[in-house]
Amino acid sequence: MSHTPVAIIGAGPAGLTLAHLLHVRYGIESVIFESRSRADVEETVRAGVLEQGTMNLMRETGVGERMDAEADIDDAIELAIDGQRTRIDLAGLTGHHMAVYPQHEYLKDFIAARLDAGQTIFFETEVTDVTGYDDDQVTVSYTTNDGQQHTLTADYVMAGDGSASPRRKLVTELPGAVRAKHEYPYAWFGILVNAPQTQKELIYAHSEHGFALISTRTPQIQRYYLQCNPDDTVDMWSDERIWDELHKRVSTDDLRVSEGEIFDKAVLRFRSAVTDPMQRGRLFLAGDAAHTVPPTGAKGLNLAVADVAALAPGLARAIKKNNRDLLDQYSALAVPRVWKAQHFSYWMSSMLHTVPEQDYFQTQRSRAELRSVLSTEAGRTYLAQQYVGLDLPKFEV
Amino acid sequence: MSHTPVAIIGAGPAGLTLAHLLHVRYGIESVIFESRSRADVEETVRAGVLEQGTMNLMRETGVGERMDAEADIDDAIELAIDGQRTRIDLAGLTGHHMAVYPQHEYLKDFIAARLDAGQTIFFETEVTDVTGYDDDQVTVSYTTNDGQQHTLTADYVMAGDGSASPRRKLVTELPGAVRAKHEYPYAWFGILVNAPQTQKELIYAHSEHGFALISTRTPQIQRYYLQCNPDDTVDMWSDERIWDELHKRVSTDDLRVSEGEIFDKAVLRFRSAVTDPMQRGRLFLAGDAAHTVPPTGAKGLNLAVADVAALAPGLARAIKKNNRDLLDQYSALAVPRVWKAQHFSYWMSSMLHTVPEQDYFQTQRSRAELRSVLSTEAGRTYLAQQYVGLDLPKFEV
Ligand SMILES: Cc1cc2nc3c(=O)[nH]c(=O)nc-3n(C[C@H](O)[C@H](O)[C@H](O)COP(=O)(O)OP(=O)(O)OC[C@H]3O[C@@H](n4cnc5c(N)ncnc54)[C@H](O)[C@@H]3O)c2cc1C
Ligand SMILES: Cc1cc2nc3c(=O)[nH]c(=O)nc-3n(C[C@H](O)[C@H](O)[C@H](O)COP(=O)(O)OP(=O)(O)OC[C@H]3O[C@@H](n4cnc5c(N)ncnc54)[C@H](O)[C@@H]3O)c2cc1C
Repeated sequence: MSHTPVAIIGAGPAGLTLAHLLHVRYGIESVIFESRSRADVEETVRAGVLEQGTMNLMRETGVGERMDAEADIDDAIELAIDGQRTRIDLAGLTGHHMAVYPQHEYLKDFIAARLDAGQTIFFETEVTDVTGYDDDQVTVSYTTNDGQQHTLTADYVMAGDGSASPRRKLVTELPGAVRAKHEYPYAWFGILVNAPQTQKELIYAHSEHGFALISTRTPQIQRYYLQCNPDDTVDMWSDERIWDELHKRVSTDDLRVSEGEIFDKAVLRFRSAVTDPMQRGRLFLAGDAAHTVPPTGAKGLNLAVADVAALAPGLARAIKKNNRDLLDQYSALAVPRVWKAQHFSYWMSSMLHTVPEQDYFQTQRSRAELRSVLSTEAGRTYLAQQYVGLDLPKFEV
Repeated sequence: MSHTPVAIIGAGPAGLTLAHLLHVRYGIESVIFESRSRADVEETVRAGVLEQGTMNLMRETGVGERMDAEADIDDAIELAIDGQRTRIDLAGLTGHHMAVYPQHEYLKDFIAARLDAGQTIFFETEVTDVTGYDDDQVTVSYTTNDGQQHTLTADYVMAGDGSASPRRKLVTELPGAVRAKHEYPYAWFGILVNAPQTQKELIYAHSEHGFALISTRTPQIQRYYLQCNPDDTVDMWSDERIWDELHKRVSTDDLRVSEGEIFDKAVLRFRSAVTDPMQRGRLFLAGDAAHTVPPTGAKGLNLAVADVAALAPGLARAIKKNNRDLLDQYSALAVPRVWKAQHFSYWMSSMLHTVPEQDYFQTQRSRAELRSVLSTEAGRTYLAQQYVGLDLPKFEV
């Protein structure tokens, strides 16, 4: 039975970033288990926005080259109310930028760097059980794609196995542990379209017909989202209805949403969830395994990166200096940032969407809030700073 | 039957400020009806915070002298979370100040100026009916304190008769008119105390035990508020309970709420209400007759002043130039500001109070919001700008 200092479940942003930081910054070995194939991981389209802190981390640890060459660096976003657009000059207001760089491209870079460095990723290998986390050593049981069962021992295990993580319950079953959730009364209907760019910068559009988001993937492929009901299904949204709603919510005399062949339709649910603490003995949760944010704030991938930026030095100090001080503080370091991101995502969502059942007072108050934010530099700065995100935590080991 | 260009119902901030602006800025006569006695009006303690715009208006129109001599000009307020206080440097962040100057002192200054100028206020005179507002001339029926009934005709009538205004329904019964309301799940228990200042600057304190506000009236008299249930009655709050709760919510090692003899106890309800439009024909609503804000944002008196700062030039242009353009736009000018004030009051209230039935997610999210606001200069500036208020509208006549 082989042994590794750190066993990592999941080759998502949390798992790959942790393994990379442990290796590059601290020379610590780890093993990653990933139930899907490499091709599957590298092709699944999910998040698309990198905060400045995430970009910096990529650059500082030698995986930023392709991102720097290929990502769309955005200086600004636009927020619209009934077609009246206000530019939020992220760079000017905060000194920071955002990169539009798809999550699967991020993952490709980290996978390539890891394999180039001769480090292990077991693809098509599913972790089936984790034991011993309350004791001296963890045992990870896993199944390879030929159906064979194996075990591996580890000093520590990080569950970066996404929002359905079975490991989470090992933490939330602790006395005093919390799993807090929030459901939203809306969802996003997302489409991918072969069409020229509507415009370079993202548009978050609030209108009485509902919210819409205009974003761009490549000069030829656009990603549009429309607020829909959480129970809507893909067949309820004909192409005609989609274009009609997009124009009603976004198009104006001087800006028309570009049309084209729609080649992907999907409904994206809105959920918030927070787990506190995010650890138990030798087991640590990071990323979606611990928390979920709605997509409005574009914080999902970035929060996973922030988690492991606090976890990596904690593990390194524990492994190299036999000192668990920082590791024991992991949740206390990570959770406040998670709540701030939850607040931001909730706030952006509430302010931009329309809730059909909402009373007139709340609807008008919320529109007044959006106007207060957009009409003052202080409001725009307050929004922009949260949008570009906090710096990543850094610790001496 | 006598006639006046403008009949004004109520000698509150709305009525007295309108009459004063019409006289001083435009030389237009008006008559004020007030059901209470002069002594009663001049002794009723209500609002206490003047925005910069309100201060400026007093100075520009010759009634600022006593305010400048006697008001406490505050450069800052403090917001606390679990005893950790953050200073919001209003002056530094916005270039504006706030004055702590009781509403009845404000009213005294305007009453004195008006009587000195030989203008009319009918005290102890109750308006019983208003007719003709849809036609060429308004007729106001009123009863003097000897029980006599009289009428007066006017070109225009302004109802500044407070939150129970019977005139409001004349506007809200119009097709398409709106009266939007919101009830809050908390109220304030307010006390007046003979005690030395706890500190000069206001403290808005959020804690898990509920909200508290520390403010000062004079060096010897302090005004404290405690979040309570909307249904609480004065007899539910013994002195002992009050001090116990104030210390739990506010006192820390380096700041102790000063105690003394409590000589006034009252429960202050939290309500929001907006009327849109605020006019019909020759009838105009202003101040609490049109809208109610909860006390957290200290916007009540200031909104009444902002309303009439837009109404006065509209009436002046109509009367002197026979042009109703500006007057017809009164609601369109006033209502957006009302919604911004509603938003600010709602936001401050929600962020600072604790709601017992609120779920864990919302409680933690709201605390994260407060932390996001307090920990960044952009957040503090966004709050400070709304706290000190918008400039007052100004129009050429
Ligand atoms: C459609 C969509 C759009 C999104 N858009 C955005 C956005 O615009 N911006 C943003 O910031 N975020 C966005 N998100 C969220 C973001 O994608 C996630 O927050 C991010 O992927 C979380 O990373 P993670 O590593 O924690 O989890 P995941 O990326 O979910 O990775 C978990 C990995 O663990 C593997 N795994 C699970 N169980 C096992 C097991 N037992 N054994 C081995 N492997 C296992 C899974 O196969 C998976 O690869 C979006 C998400 C979705 C679904
Ligand atoms: C306890 C309390 C504390 C407050 N604290 C604050 C604060 O800290 N900051 C803040 O900004 N606001 C505060 N407010 C709100 C603020 O006092 C009001 O918003 C403000 O008084 C509104 O002014 P107004 O002129 O519209 O109405 P009012 O001040 O209510 O004046 C209306 C007047 O009309 C008279 N009237 C009514 N009907 C008739 C009639 N038929 N005929 C003749 N006269 C009539 C009344 O007697 C009254 O004098 C507080 C209110 C209360 C009650």
